Amino acid sequence: MNIPKSSFPRVVIIGGGFAGVALAKKLSKKELQVVLLDKHNYHNFQPLLYQVSTGGLEPDSIAYPIRKILKDFPNFYFRLADVSEIDTEKCKVISNIGSLKFDYLVVASGSKTNFFGNKSIEDNSMEMKTIPQSLNLRSLILENFEDALLTSNLHERNALMNFVIVGAGPTGVELAGALAEIKKGILPKDYPDLDTRTVQINLVQSGDRILKEMSEKASKKAEDFLEDLGVHVWKNVRVTGYDGNVVTTNSDLTFEAETVIWAAGVKGAAINGIDGEELLSKSNRIQVNEFNQVKGFNNIFAIGDVAQMTTDQTPYGHPMMAQPAIQQGKHLGDNLLRLIENKPLKPFKYKDKGSMATVGRNKAVVDLPKFKFQGVFAWFVWMFVHLFFLIGFRNRLVVFINWVYNYVRFDREARLIIRPYKNKFKP
Amino acid sequence: MNIPKSSFPRVVIIGGGFAGVALAKKLSKKELQVVLLDKHNYHNFQPLLYQVSTGGLEPDSIAYPIRKILKDFPNFYFRLADVSEIDTEKCKVISNIGSLKFDYLVVASGSKTNFFGNKSIEDNSMEMKTIPQSLNLRSLILENFEDALLTSNLHERNALMNFVIVGAGPTGVELAGALAEIKKGILPKDYPDLDTRTVQINLVQSGDRILKEMSEKASKKAEDFLEDLGVHVWKNVRVTGYDGNVVTTNSDLTFEAETVIWAAGVKGAAINGIDGEELLSKSNRIQVNEFNQVKGFNNIFAIGDVAQMTTDQTPYGHPMMAQPAIQQGKHLGDNLLRLIENKPLKPFKYKDKGSMATVGRNKAVVDLPKFKFQGVFAWFVWMFVHLFFLIGFRNRLVVFINWVYNYVRFDREARLIIRPYKNKFKP
Repeated sequence: MNIPKSSFPRVVIIGGGFAGVALAKKLSKKELQVVLLDKHNYHNFQPLLYQVSTGGLEPDSIAYPIRKILKDFPNFYFRLADVSEIDTEKCKVISNIGSLKFDYLVVASGSKTNFFGNKSIEDNSMEMKTIPQSLNLRSLILENFEDALLTSNLHERNALMNFVIVGAGPTGVELAGALAEIKKGILPKDYPDLDTRTVQINLVQSGDRILKEMSEKASKKAEDFLEDLGVHVWKNVRVTGYDGNVVTTNSDLTFEAETVIWAAGVKGAAINGIDGEELLSKSNRIQVNEFNQVKGFNNIFAIGDVAQMTTDQTPYGHPMMAQPAIQQGKHLGDNLLRLIENKPLKPFKYKDKGSMATVGRNKAVVDLPKFKFQGVFAWFVWMFVHLFFLIGFRNRLVVFINWVYNYVRFDREARLIIRPYKNKFKP
Repeated sequence: MNIPKSSFPRVVIIGGGFAGVALAKKLSKKELQVVLLDKHNYHNFQPLLYQVSTGGLEPDSIAYPIRKILKDFPNFYFRLADVSEIDTEKCKVISNIGSLKFDYLVVASGSKTNFFGNKSIEDNSMEMKTIPQSLNLRSLILENFEDALLTSNLHERNALMNFVIVGAGPTGVELAGALAEIKKGILPKDYPDLDTRTVQINLVQSGDRILKEMSEKASKKAEDFLEDLGVHVWKNVRVTGYDGNVVTTNSDLTFEAETVIWAAGVKGAAINGIDGEELLSKSNRIQVNEFNQVKGFNNIFAIGDVAQMTTDQTPYGHPMMAQPAIQQGKHLGDNLLRLIENKPLKPFKYKDKGSMATVGRNKAVVDLPKFKFQGVFAWFVWMFVHLFFLIGFRNRLVVFINWVYNYVRFDREARLIIRPYKNKFKP
């Protein structure tokens, strides 16, 4: 890789997500050469991907060019690279654009969808972890309505208008709510010649409550909100397969559906080379100590979703969400500088700032450490917090305007099939 | 095609561009069944595609869902369909989703890029007629800069940073100006480790002036503006081939370039079935009379880019631009109603409202019928007119905010490679 030599120690960061960017910002203007590698040239605000899928937001307004984040930092280098392996012995990373030596390495490669080895589901269902995936889902949803108009086969039409979302974490809940609002507010106007009352939105959850990481009260209220919107919530049902036509479950329940969105699990996006006992086989996350150091190495770290810091309080590591990632990134920034100055490292302590999910207009649930609330105020808090964490003034303004517009007009104007999804298969 | 029977006469419109949409609006609330067919589910504002390619605007804000345009019109049907043939004898259109009988047919299928039969150019150069094509170009431009960083081969690096735009109509001029502004304002910050002064922007024109449809003064001033921005303008040079590496011309001049944008010609997007003497072989446009009626038919019409109305004033038809398309759409709307009521048709008369092109910030040229002006004021007029013709309040607002932001910050934030272009070839 074509990076100039430097007299400063070189820190290589793999991944420009919440963790990687928070770390990079901490290292700006220090006596370090920092190289950030990512498969994409943008940082993407994952919590709002479901709004891209449902036509509420443009993809460009929840993405931010990584080069722009780094532009005022001296000694910073960005490379668009897909890292395939880490050579821990020779201290180098190997990628599609060549290899690069490091003095310090930070793996911040995030997470990917976990299909738990189920090939039929992996092959036939939709994911929503990246912007292209979210755009594919947007196209598929809209193409299905167009196709539903064309068929006089009732069976086929119902399958085209049947949506099954597997997994009732924040992603599944937010997507289900958004689809229900589209069903109610947009479809009857856009498709006057289609009986859109037959659109079914199913949210399937293996556990006995939705939003299981949140409070009982939040779960209960979110479920009420979803039912108000006409979403069918199925609890204690585990999806076992999907052949592209029929979703099977561990009970007699089946769904005939053209669209299945898999939001039932994520796993670490670990990288070859760190695959000894430091890699936890179940979660595919890299085990780190309280300094985010990878077991057995002094100069290799992992932060964010890909890192699992097992403590008494967090037997399965921290939640795979933005907050722990940002906090670990910032914390490691300080620790790296201590390490270089041969000062003792400080252990990471996660500050749980709470969690939240939105179901629809005026409908959200918020759990703060001190108090919990639901409804209109929660919904405003949810919007405010999401706007605050978006990177970039323009993005905030454009997202804000879209939200105001969508709220006032009960609309979502970005219902555009820019790149057809089905046509990939039908030439 | 699954369209309900109706006692009203059926008008089928092929194409939801400027002409088709203007016509559809005229026919709303009349005693007609109107079926609009388009390959895309959105209307796209072509004059701003170059800003999508250069990261200044989101694609979603220059597109508008066709269903939303039609939503308050009774007896209107939209179908996402690719029409392959017109059966003029049996009065039906044949498409990928089946066939449909019509009482009246309006072909408003627009235009496509004209490579004048040059296969090497067609295979290797980029087009900018649709949103996906514009996004491909955006990706390619950005990928080229990323690749330029990786190579130490000076030859290869120069080719990656050499842009050749063929054709100096409004599209070519506007794109060249936008690229020049990126070179000046964004590249040095984004790529501090690349000598971006070596970026070359070449605008090649076979005629002896740029913007040849505009006044001599506009041409001259636009050329000055481009030269101020560092664009190389080549006049009286005809590009003869491009093998993916080297652009050849009718002179000794050649360019080694990875990116060639072909903006040197368009032709009508005529449809099989109307291919007798009514189809003009050179322009691939359908010959129509002064009522936009296709030669030899009473109930088949063509409007917009695909129609060529040859008169003494317009020996090559009207310019293939938004204005004639909109005017013909509106005019035909009135004429169709006259035809149905057995009233005499009124001939179409084009009102030339003038033309304009922008080169960069504070740099535009405007030719109005009564007076011509260039510079800052022209630039404001250009922006105002383009905002005015955009469909939809949200789109106008989002575009306006992006323009203000880009102007104040000398920035273009949508420099995102959402779907890599080169990766299509390199798996």
